[in-house]
Amino acid sequence: MAKVGVVLSGCGVYDGAEIHEAVITLLALDRAGAEAVCMAPDSEQMHVVNHLSGEVAEGEKRNVLVESARIARGQIKNLKEVKAADIDALIFPGGFGAAKNLCDFAVKGADCSVHPEVARLVREVVKAKKPLAAVCIAPALVSRVLGNDQLAHKLTIGTDEGTAQALGAMGTQHVACPVHEFVVDRENKLISTPAYMLAGRISEAAEGIEKTVRALLEMI
Amino acid sequence: MAKVGVVLSGCGVYDGAEIHEAVITLLALDRAGAEAVCMAPDSEQMHVVNHLSGEVAEGEKRNVLVESARIARGQIKNLKEVKAADIDALIFPGGFGAAKNLCDFAVKGADCSVHPEVARLVREVVKAKKPLAAVCIAPALVSRVLGNDQLAHKLTIGTDEGTAQALGAMGTQHVACPVHEFVVDRENKLISTPAYMLAGRISEAAEGIEKTVRALLEMI
Repeated sequence: MAKVGVVLSGCGVYDGAEIHEAVITLLALDRAGAEAVCMAPDSEQMHVVNHLSGEVAEGEKRNVLVESARIARGQIKNLKEVKAADIDALIFPGGFGAAKNLCDFAVKGADCSVHPEVARLVREVVKAKKPLAAVCIAPALVSRVLGNDQLAHKLTIGTDEGTAQALGAMGTQHVACPVHEFVVDRENKLISTPAYMLAGRISEAAEGIEKTVRALLEMI
Repeated sequence: MAKVGVVLSGCGVYDGAEIHEAVITLLALDRAGAEAVCMAPDSEQMHVVNHLSGEVAEGEKRNVLVESARIARGQIKNLKEVKAADIDALIFPGGFGAAKNLCDFAVKGADCSVHPEVARLVREVVKAKKPLAAVCIAPALVSRVLGNDQLAHKLTIGTDEGTAQALGAMGTQHVACPVHEFVVDRENKLISTPAYMLAGRISEAAEGIEKTVRALLEMI
């Protein structure tokens, strides 16, 4: 049974992991007979957003690992304890958490930096030639890590020009991609799909993610 | 396009809506071409559970509607503003929130009482002969409402004997049911499925929920 690391970044699209993307990923992995190894960094969220009002909840603090555990039903590891040797592949669902908690792309754009343990795991997985998938905005953190390493690579975040340009500035060859498709970089075993960067409905996000998970497992 | 009310009870299996069950419900509805109308009561959660440790987070407070908005990506209504006339069917995903926030079955068992607005909507929907589905532990609140009304009806929570007996004490004819199936009460247009009352894997929960959603839409 393939073991696939699933990196969560909280619980909720505006300050954490996009819940639909994360659950669709877990379901697609289970249906394919793969074991999901959920993980998240043990660190404070950038902030907490009230998802009803859309406003920042001033003074409120939440922990990325503790909130991610909601999506994982308590079955989750501290990311710093996971090594590439423990898994056969790695996938990052999206949500603002990927750009606020796993890196600070949401604030700093192309000048962002990546959570050191997240960067370490991405490097290990790519170096070990194990496949890595990134959904929605999560390709931004992969771009920063591989761009810093001056590794030529391809990713998509869909069709948003500003975001695509930022990835280009970090060293990625950005490939435009519709919501129901995905982009493969065979050389580096990278797969990416736009999901809620473009999706207007949950079924649109699901189509691209299900194809991405299938492609990820085929590359193991 | 059928409009189906989805009643959420927070965001996380131990103190709110079961996230997998809720997302699988939303995806199944969208794939069937139905519109999900997410809603939750605007009230405090019974408590907050740290899903990493499993312990109650003492002193922490969260609002059921605000946390449910995470699953709904902000597109959610205050339940008290929804009437049976606004929807074609109603579904309750499970999670402890259904037994802690929508009613207090988790604490009081058969002596529980149901959130007044939730009870009002259940009554309206059943009286209007619109179909209603309840997943996982959510049948407990339906049992309490219909039992109070002395309406003969059938539901399942799976095979847990203690829980089944409590539903019996409230006036339900409990029907044992495996995880991948569902129980239909044609007379009252009620559908129920055990999901994580029995599921060991997300794909098991998904199978029963997908069948339940299909049966729910066919009954409209």
